[in-house]
Formats: sequence, C-alpha cells, structure tokens
Amino acid sequence: MATPIEFFFDFSSPYSYLASEIIEPLASRYGREVDYKPMLLGVAFKHAGTRPLVEVPLKGEYSKRDMERSARFFGVRFALPDPFPIGAVAASRAVIWLRDRDEQRARRFVHAAFREYFVNGRNIADTTVVADVLRQIGADTDRVLAAIQQPDIKERLKASVDAALARGVFGAPFLFVDGEPFWGHDRLPQVEKWLASGPF
Amino acid sequence: MATPIEFFFDFSSPYSYLASEIIEPLASRYGREVDYKPMLLGVAFKHAGTRPLVEVPLKGEYSKRDMERSARFFGVRFALPDPFPIGAVAASRAVIWLRDRDEQRARRFVHAAFREYFVNGRNIADTTVVADVLRQIGADTDRVLAAIQQPDIKERLKASVDAALARGVFGAPFLFVDGEPFWGHDRLPQVEKWLASGPF
Repeated sequence: MATPIEFFFDFSSPYSYLASEIIEPLASRYGREVDYKPMLLGVAFKHAGTRPLVEVPLKGEYSKRDMERSARFFGVRFALPDPFPIGAVAASRAVIWLRDRDEQRARRFVHAAFREYFVNGRNIADTTVVADVLRQIGADTDRVLAAIQQPDIKERLKASVDAALARGVFGAPFLFVDGEPFWGHDRLPQVEKWLASGPF
Repeated sequence: MATPIEFFFDFSSPYSYLASEIIEPLASRYGREVDYKPMLLGVAFKHAGTRPLVEVPLKGEYSKRDMERSARFFGVRFALPDPFPIGAVAASRAVIWLRDRDEQRARRFVHAAFREYFVNGRNIADTTVVADVLRQIGADTDRVLAAIQQPDIKERLKASVDAALARGVFGAPFLFVDGEPFWGHDRLPQVEKWLASGPF
C-alpha cells in the first residue's frame, strides 16, 4: 500500500470536518489510508499573523454562508455550532494518545468527535463530551481521560503542532500526499488527480 | 437570456486570471454572459485588515506553488510575473470606459490584459503595455488612454470598488450568480451546480 495521506486538522475547523467526510471514500478508491494529525489553528494564526476566519470583516459573514452551502454541495450534514470557534485541546490530545495505540480507533474518534460538534452541536471542548465520544468508539474512557492530563501527551501535541508549522502548515485542513502540500477542502479535486495519475 | 454572472476581479490576482479563463466556457454552456467588474484588492485588504497572500508567512510560499499547480490542473497557461503584485489602476479604468460603450470589447480587453501579465509576463501597470493591449483588441488607443486620465473615470472606478465592498466583496475573484456570492476560483464547481439546477 502507498504511503498514507497526512491530514492536519483542527476540531474547530468546519472545512476540516467537511474534508474529513469527503477524503475517506476518495482515499480508499486509490488504496490509501488517511493519517489524522491534530494541529491547533490558534497557534498557526499567531505564527502567520492571521485571524480566525469568522473574525475578519466581510470574510467572516461570507464564510458562514459558504460553510453551509459547501456542506450542502457535498451532501454532508452540517450545522454551525454555538459556541464557535472553540479550542478543542483535550480532544486533540486524545487523538495523539489513541493514534499511538490503534490508528483505526483514532480515525473513528476523529470522525465521531467532528460529527458530535458539527452535526449534533455539542461542545467538544467540554471533557464530558469528549468522554461521550470515547464511549461511542469503545475506548477505555477513564484511561484516555487520565492519560491526556499527563505532561508527556501535552508535550506530544505541542510537538505535533510545531512539526506542522515547520512543514509550512498555516491553516486547516492541510494535507500532504507523497509530500505534496494541499490546503483546503477545495483542493480535494487536485488531491484526487494526484492520487489517480501522480504529480502534475 | 438569464442575468449575467457578475465577476469582480483584480488584474493583479492570479486566481482571478485563472477563473476568467475557466468561467467563459462554463457560462456559455448555461446561456449566461460574464460581466467583468474591476475592483482593487489593495482597498479591500485595507478594509478587511488583511494582506496580499504572498506577504503572509507560510501561506505566501504555499500560494505560489498552489497558483502554478492550479493552473496546470485546469490546463491554463500561467507564469508568476515579476513584479508581482502590482496596482493595475489604469487597466482597471480602461475596463470601466470600454464597458460603458461595448461589453464585448471590455471582455476582450480583460482577457488580453490578464494574458499579457500572467502568460507573457509584461507589467500591465505600465501605460505602454496597456496601450499595446488596447491595440490588440482594436480599441482607439489614444482615445482610451486620454479618457482614463479624466476625473470622471477615476471616480467611476472608485465608486465601483466602494459598491463591491458594500456588497461584501473582500477578495478576488468574487462572483455573484443571481445575487448569490461565490469567492475564489475554487468555487466554480458550486457556480456550475447553481447554473445547472438553481439554488441549493
């Protein structure tokens, strides 16, 4: 099997959620797996001197409309949650911990957490909601919740974000396919061309 | 014939150029015309507190790669010019003047100017290059060059930019189809869906 698609995301990013729903069938059509790597947009924004989309005048209003229309375009269920945006650090740490042990389970957690927030409108920055998501995917909830309080996992997430920045990741979703960078759910047609016929 | 597609653009925007090449066959498949309306990204950036793409750390480097790859993806000839970006005020004023008199000719001017800059690498901020483009499309070069020095045309461009901002145009290309806003060449698949089957 070819190398996995690296998928950097932030749980607070609607376009990351959309891409996470679209990428799975796309990747499997070309025999690829998706490796979900949490990053923190807040850190990236500070680094690049940018701001959350919805805080930018005009662009913020448009982007809300665009998120909803893009979801309809792709046939993905979506409702802009409140509060939004959030800092989903605990959920991101859970991905790191799960990914070390069982990539399939980490992947199921990513999808379940995204849907909890962007479909059911539950705030995944809240640890009790993270616990619910862990239960949904059959993880050892107490063990994971205890683990993500430990300094080593906190450090691992920080290192993951730093590594992303060092590779030029300034937003989310941000994908690497065979090392080639693609930013945004709207580059998935280009990702597909790359998967189908290689570099172009 | 249904209402034209409003196409707000800046001559210095590579993604506007890309979209201008893709939109024509798309629009004509659905019996629509494209109405090119110049705006000035510099003014929009000031308004929204944003910056030219290439000046943003990380994003700037990525965007250059993405512009070139996106052009290849769509089969559009493209070479990032130097200098870039530019302020193409004279060319924008020429569009306003031509558009008042002959929409077809204004459209030919837009395409010819874009190609002069993004294919041939000639600086369309330079009046002698604007003159060449006017000659290419068979316009009365001296008359247009004199007209765009007049206060009324300068004022008309300013009013066009202000009207764009008032309608929420914060970037380019920015399209309105039946009043619905679409930002970016990467929303053309959504534009096509809209043209094919209406609101979604």
